[in-house]
Amino acid sequence: MGMTMTQKILAEHANLDYVEAGQLIEANLDLVLANDITGPVAIHEAERLNKKTVFDKDKIVLVPDHFTPNKDIKSANHCKCVREYAKTHEITNYFEIGEMGIEHALIPEKGLIVAGETCIGADSHTCTYGALGAFSTGVGSTDMGAGMITGKAWFKVPSALSFILTGKPPKWVSGKDIILAIIGMIGVDGALYKSMEFSGDGIKYLTMDDRFTIANMAIEAGAKNGIFPVDASTITYMKEHSSKDYKIYEADEDAVYEKTYTIELDKLEPVVAFPHLPENTRLVSEAGDVPIDQVVIGSCTNGRIEDLRTAAKILDGRHVAPGVRTIIFPATQSIYLQAISEGLIQTFIKAGAVVSTPTCGPCLGGHMGVLAAGERAISTTNRNFVGRMGDVNSEVYLASPAVAAASAVTGKISQPSDLSL
Amino acid sequence: MGMTMTQKILAEHANLDYVEAGQLIEANLDLVLANDITGPVAIHEAERLNKKTVFDKDKIVLVPDHFTPNKDIKSANHCKCVREYAKTHEITNYFEIGEMGIEHALIPEKGLIVAGETCIGADSHTCTYGALGAFSTGVGSTDMGAGMITGKAWFKVPSALSFILTGKPPKWVSGKDIILAIIGMIGVDGALYKSMEFSGDGIKYLTMDDRFTIANMAIEAGAKNGIFPVDASTITYMKEHSSKDYKIYEADEDAVYEKTYTIELDKLEPVVAFPHLPENTRLVSEAGDVPIDQVVIGSCTNGRIEDLRTAAKILDGRHVAPGVRTIIFPATQSIYLQAISEGLIQTFIKAGAVVSTPTCGPCLGGHMGVLAAGERAISTTNRNFVGRMGDVNSEVYLASPAVAAASAVTGKISQPSDLSL
Repeated sequence: MGMTMTQKILAEHANLDYVEAGQLIEANLDLVLANDITGPVAIHEAERLNKKTVFDKDKIVLVPDHFTPNKDIKSANHCKCVREYAKTHEITNYFEIGEMGIEHALIPEKGLIVAGETCIGADSHTCTYGALGAFSTGVGSTDMGAGMITGKAWFKVPSALSFILTGKPPKWVSGKDIILAIIGMIGVDGALYKSMEFSGDGIKYLTMDDRFTIANMAIEAGAKNGIFPVDASTITYMKEHSSKDYKIYEADEDAVYEKTYTIELDKLEPVVAFPHLPENTRLVSEAGDVPIDQVVIGSCTNGRIEDLRTAAKILDGRHVAPGVRTIIFPATQSIYLQAISEGLIQTFIKAGAVVSTPTCGPCLGGHMGVLAAGERAISTTNRNFVGRMGDVNSEVYLASPAVAAASAVTGKISQPSDLSL
Repeated sequence: MGMTMTQKILAEHANLDYVEAGQLIEANLDLVLANDITGPVAIHEAERLNKKTVFDKDKIVLVPDHFTPNKDIKSANHCKCVREYAKTHEITNYFEIGEMGIEHALIPEKGLIVAGETCIGADSHTCTYGALGAFSTGVGSTDMGAGMITGKAWFKVPSALSFILTGKPPKWVSGKDIILAIIGMIGVDGALYKSMEFSGDGIKYLTMDDRFTIANMAIEAGAKNGIFPVDASTITYMKEHSSKDYKIYEADEDAVYEKTYTIELDKLEPVVAFPHLPENTRLVSEAGDVPIDQVVIGSCTNGRIEDLRTAAKILDGRHVAPGVRTIIFPATQSIYLQAISEGLIQTFIKAGAVVSTPTCGPCLGGHMGVLAAGERAISTTNRNFVGRMGDVNSEVYLASPAVAAASAVTGKISQPSDLSL
């Protein structure tokens, strides 16, 4: 029997010719990453194994992106711990605020991961880099700590689900709508510990930013990873951003998939996930009358330049509805600068939105946009669990930048077509 | 005996021909303001007096600027309280995030206060508006609550100190250096419950932004208020920003001042206030070797467009020192937009600074730049008390935007001339 794309990457990194689902392997790691929340715990674990060194100072990435600029004394101390560890071990890729961004947008942008590589990160959305044809997955801080010292990690080789994407998505249907539609179909445990392998002629219509969004949310279906084939767009992206050598893996023709789904992209409409699970999806056209208090556009899921361009198209010349707090976070400093050069930030401010420096802040109810009891947000982030963005009696609705921006204008859940764009 | 400028404004607002220092009066208020920290307490007090109405819905200003975008659930609830009160009483000047800014920059910019008016605010830096020739002062939330209902406040008429500013300040000496130099001279209780009345031929060299900075920090010398005469610059500013009628008051020639100080602006050099009091001033040239971890440029004291222009002049084509977190906050949304149109924000990001939406955040250790134990910041804010910006074992050095920006570049306390500008 053949191997999936994921299995082939894992086999090679375990120095094996063949692996199969369920097999336990030890794989060499090309990248190990943590942030200001998970970093201190990982560092503590790493220091239990070895205080003197790390496996490779060029293959560890530390990004203080969650509670920065420091939210409070506790977060200041966490960041200090990470910063000092990076200094002690001369970690090449420690990113201070000012040079940084949200890790899952920053790392591809900086060219730190390319196709065919393996990556673990002490953050569940590490699966984002599957968009580049890499195997990447979130782990706990203990595994991260061990990875920093050994450069290896144990995996149970995942089985796989095949998602064949066909056709061209209609206007205003983005990667976010595609992944929400899939999660709505298979559920939040629909891909539990499996690979979500994407293929099909529809992929060519997806920008890299669309693919990052889709891979990013594979974890929201419970997947071990999500992965895209490497095509011309991927190669162009990697050449623009990285000097690393990439390697293209393709699934065998007789690779085993537990199930195959065909997603007709041309039939999709904008989708919104109602509280309190990403699987609670509805078409925006069937969402009903849902007034909102806050709009968040950004995060590792949807804070990239395409996302901001989409939001700006909708907000240009319009104003957010009275009383709707609209908070926009470019995911990295260079996206921020690019957005200024294209006039997007100016559009947002004129529309009555606030624009802030990159941070994970509001996505996890961390800071910079926390909800009070009874408040409701529509957000381009990735989770809408109970209390995710604040009080346990608040609500989060997940959607694309287009839907979030249209909702900001009307003050209730809406899609661009409601504005007769 | 004649009256000071402050006394004349108070007399007229108390419907009296004459007042003298120490006299208790009740004055009519032209403006009553609170923020998201002081607002909820003030509202509670106001509701004890009258739940049904406020004295004048056009003369109350509510600005949620301290812990916004909401830092946490508690701050979200505080903002919600203020927002709902504003809605219930149809407060004209409630500013939601997206429309707002730091209150003491926003209120003059929106033209809500002009020369000759009286203002109380439940925030100590309400004294800022003295730059426009108004009487304005900080009060507790109880007085604020009563003011919202009655439109009046009791005052003990302050005695006064006269500060005669002469000559033209040298390059890189700004309003911040002037007020720090004064506080260094008279101490943090040097003007306790007195008016600081500024006059002299040096004022014409001060921009309105310089004057706002100086008046803003009158409270740091313990003053009841700081006040500037109205000149051509003031009138131009008011005409650009406000449609309100202003009234010019001038101190009588025989006004009584407890003491008169002459400040030779042309003799000043850039100043820095060492921890842990604003009076601990030294010349930057004599500051010695003080490495810094963080730079903050912004706040109600120094987040205006002139401040950003100055910082950008220094950061243009340069980069912040490695490891120095440099955080820049335009004080209002319109300053932010103006700063983009002038290319200042782009300069900051290219220099490795982070730029964030208006908030008081780091000034008071609230969020967006809190210090860990052992860390040291240079900041354009107004207070460097123990623990002001975070851990009790952190340190804050107060300085001008020019000095803060130069320090960001070198990584230690520096002035522009150290960069051979």
